[in-house]
Amino acid sequence: MFGPFVMTVALLTIGTELLRGEVANINGQWLADQLTQLGFDIAAMETVADHHEKLVATLRRLLDTHALVIATGGLGPTTDDLTTAAAAEVAGVELATNHDALATIKHRIEERGDELRPGHDKQALLPVGGELLPNTEGTAPGFILRTGGATVYCLPGVHREMQHMFEQQVVPRIRGAASNDGYTVCLHTFGPHESWLADRLESLKLEHPDVTVGYQATGSSIDLRIHARGPDYAQARDRVKRAVDEARARLGDVIYGEGDQTMALLAGRAVRKRGWRLAIAESCTGGLISHQLTSQPASDYLVGGAVTYANSAKTSLLGVSEDTLRGHGAVSAEVAAELAEGARRVFDCEVGISATGIAGPTGAAPGKPIGLCHWAVAHPDGTELEQRVFSGTRSQVQYKAAHAVLALLRRTLAGNNL
Amino acid sequence: MFGPFVMTVALLTIGTELLRGEVANINGQWLADQLTQLGFDIAAMETVADHHEKLVATLRRLLDTHALVIATGGLGPTTDDLTTAAAAEVAGVELATNHDALATIKHRIEERGDELRPGHDKQALLPVGGELLPNTEGTAPGFILRTGGATVYCLPGVHREMQHMFEQQVVPRIRGAASNDGYTVCLHTFGPHESWLADRLESLKLEHPDVTVGYQATGSSIDLRIHARGPDYAQARDRVKRAVDEARARLGDVIYGEGDQTMALLAGRAVRKRGWRLAIAESCTGGLISHQLTSQPASDYLVGGAVTYANSAKTSLLGVSEDTLRGHGAVSAEVAAELAEGARRVFDCEVGISATGIAGPTGAAPGKPIGLCHWAVAHPDGTELEQRVFSGTRSQVQYKAAHAVLALLRRTLAGNNL
Repeated sequence: MFGPFVMTVALLTIGTELLRGEVANINGQWLADQLTQLGFDIAAMETVADHHEKLVATLRRLLDTHALVIATGGLGPTTDDLTTAAAAEVAGVELATNHDALATIKHRIEERGDELRPGHDKQALLPVGGELLPNTEGTAPGFILRTGGATVYCLPGVHREMQHMFEQQVVPRIRGAASNDGYTVCLHTFGPHESWLADRLESLKLEHPDVTVGYQATGSSIDLRIHARGPDYAQARDRVKRAVDEARARLGDVIYGEGDQTMALLAGRAVRKRGWRLAIAESCTGGLISHQLTSQPASDYLVGGAVTYANSAKTSLLGVSEDTLRGHGAVSAEVAAELAEGARRVFDCEVGISATGIAGPTGAAPGKPIGLCHWAVAHPDGTELEQRVFSGTRSQVQYKAAHAVLALLRRTLAGNNL
Repeated sequence: MFGPFVMTVALLTIGTELLRGEVANINGQWLADQLTQLGFDIAAMETVADHHEKLVATLRRLLDTHALVIATGGLGPTTDDLTTAAAAEVAGVELATNHDALATIKHRIEERGDELRPGHDKQALLPVGGELLPNTEGTAPGFILRTGGATVYCLPGVHREMQHMFEQQVVPRIRGAASNDGYTVCLHTFGPHESWLADRLESLKLEHPDVTVGYQATGSSIDLRIHARGPDYAQARDRVKRAVDEARARLGDVIYGEGDQTMALLAGRAVRKRGWRLAIAESCTGGLISHQLTSQPASDYLVGGAVTYANSAKTSLLGVSEDTLRGHGAVSAEVAAELAEGARRVFDCEVGISATGIAGPTGAAPGKPIGLCHWAVAHPDGTELEQRVFSGTRSQVQYKAAHAVLALLRRTLAGNNL
């Protein structure tokens, strides 16, 4: 449909609810991700209200500056669905009933035992010269309209309907216009601040000038997105891989995973690989470690966990000694060790892990600031201990502590500590 | 700072990762929601790449057409942080080191035991004539810049830093310019699909034509945003309140909370109010219920929990009978009851809760489909039992089950089941 030139794409999401922050713009993010993976360069993402004049002005500006515009929303049966009329005005054409669209709408409405109402047949109106995109999942059809040198695809706002229409009808039509010359690797880091990472990677940009490095804080990690584009896919991939090797050499253990590898996934995989069974004892993390590990299937290695929030639970369930609790306090290396060893014993596992700390916002004591965490990994040859004062909110301290425990578990299983 | 006229606002989120769909635009949605609640009318939301020329062109266009532009991102220490230079170019001014900003950055870096490096002092560069917005949560300061008749607020892209700066420094400055004639209530629902809710609320729009209803799926819930605007705050509030009463009458128990009330918060509050102590037994939810309850401080009522993933853990830790497991299977009402009763007994609490089910993606058995969950609340007068087959992914089944358990706990404590 398009020539082999590289075109820039603009995304337009239509809906007043988006401008009010009432809903997340999942259509925009999903389309941006899909188009990037196809090899397109998204030059603009805009959101506009359900308002005829604003919609016309925005659509006109985007079609003046981009070869391809993909718009979602505003195709429904209600009076605040204005996209079709706006697109027709921009292209300088009239609206006319599309009889294929009308037949499909009638069929779908009868299927659900309903009858055709005024709003429904409005959905069969298309700009004259527009090409119908049938909706296999709902009533509102989409359409393609060409005006000047540009093309706009108007898709429904309902996420599932939009996804199907994009995958089945838009992708086959636009695929040929994608450059397919980009490559990205995402590396996950834990520990240092963004500026520490940037410092170490600054000269990487000088040595690999066509490679970009993006930083994104996600939960307890900072992700690095290492990206290159052109002259073709193989060369972009090779350049990214060289930059990734260089980044790994400079950052060492700070990088813990790549792509969809979360720390929980990696730690779980390490336990499974060793053929061991795992038990968990959580205090300050309150179930978060168990939750992260069980986000993927885990029943082949995870026996169970105890969230021993009160001291009485630490003692009665996991056999932490009352003397240790009195002598060192619940947040101590000694209690972390007894928790991990107790979990290992009680659940009858090869390895037990624990975390005890002060997540905040209250609970600090002399010498024990908010954010202090102790954690342990108990295994057949002994018990590994670590501690740190984590910064941030209650939730951030919990996420950082969970990450640190799983990282120690993974290192221990990798043999560094055994 | 601004006159009493109503101004339109544009939001600009800066970052190539957003245009690639790599991350959700949480800053954009959060700011849109906050500004709407303050009474502003968001006229445009745009996202632009970390690219100097594109950033300059977009910022210039937005400042030409809107009185107030709020931008986030691109203020960090790295070479792809370009917002300050772009804003200076648009305003036609130079950059100069702001010594207050530099002193704060130095202080913050020393605090964390680091030393000042080139990228850091770049963050102290501000457009000449710009007003510093100190960053109380990180190193990148924000700033205000006036050009022509318009004003741009440049805030950091790190969500928490941006939130603090907006709440503490931006809101006091812009509040006077808001129309303050809008009112929104957010109602949380659990159970029915969006189309079921929309069906029941359709005529609400006819009876309250100036009230809008937005729908947003969040985790296990669907949130309803009921919003009205003008002619003044009191009238908007009254209209929203009438519509909320009507929605509550039509939807009944489907609405479980309002505003920042999560089900975990409400259930925790109900246990605390009764003066009881709580114990948790989780199987399919794998720690999620404990995690949700301990996201807020919970040590005054939560004694602990057991994640009894393997059958051996159910038996050894919580005393579930091997006969029950053999006779009914781990996913059964009988095991749910024994888990809740066991947790109550072992942790020595007034109330014990449990969940056992098949979260998927595998594990179905004859008569036990994926998504089947049984849960129980054991209390001094007996044990309440419920079951359901939840749809969705592994994660969705876990979130729905956790929600349902906490809902039963809350209802039980409210006395409906006692």
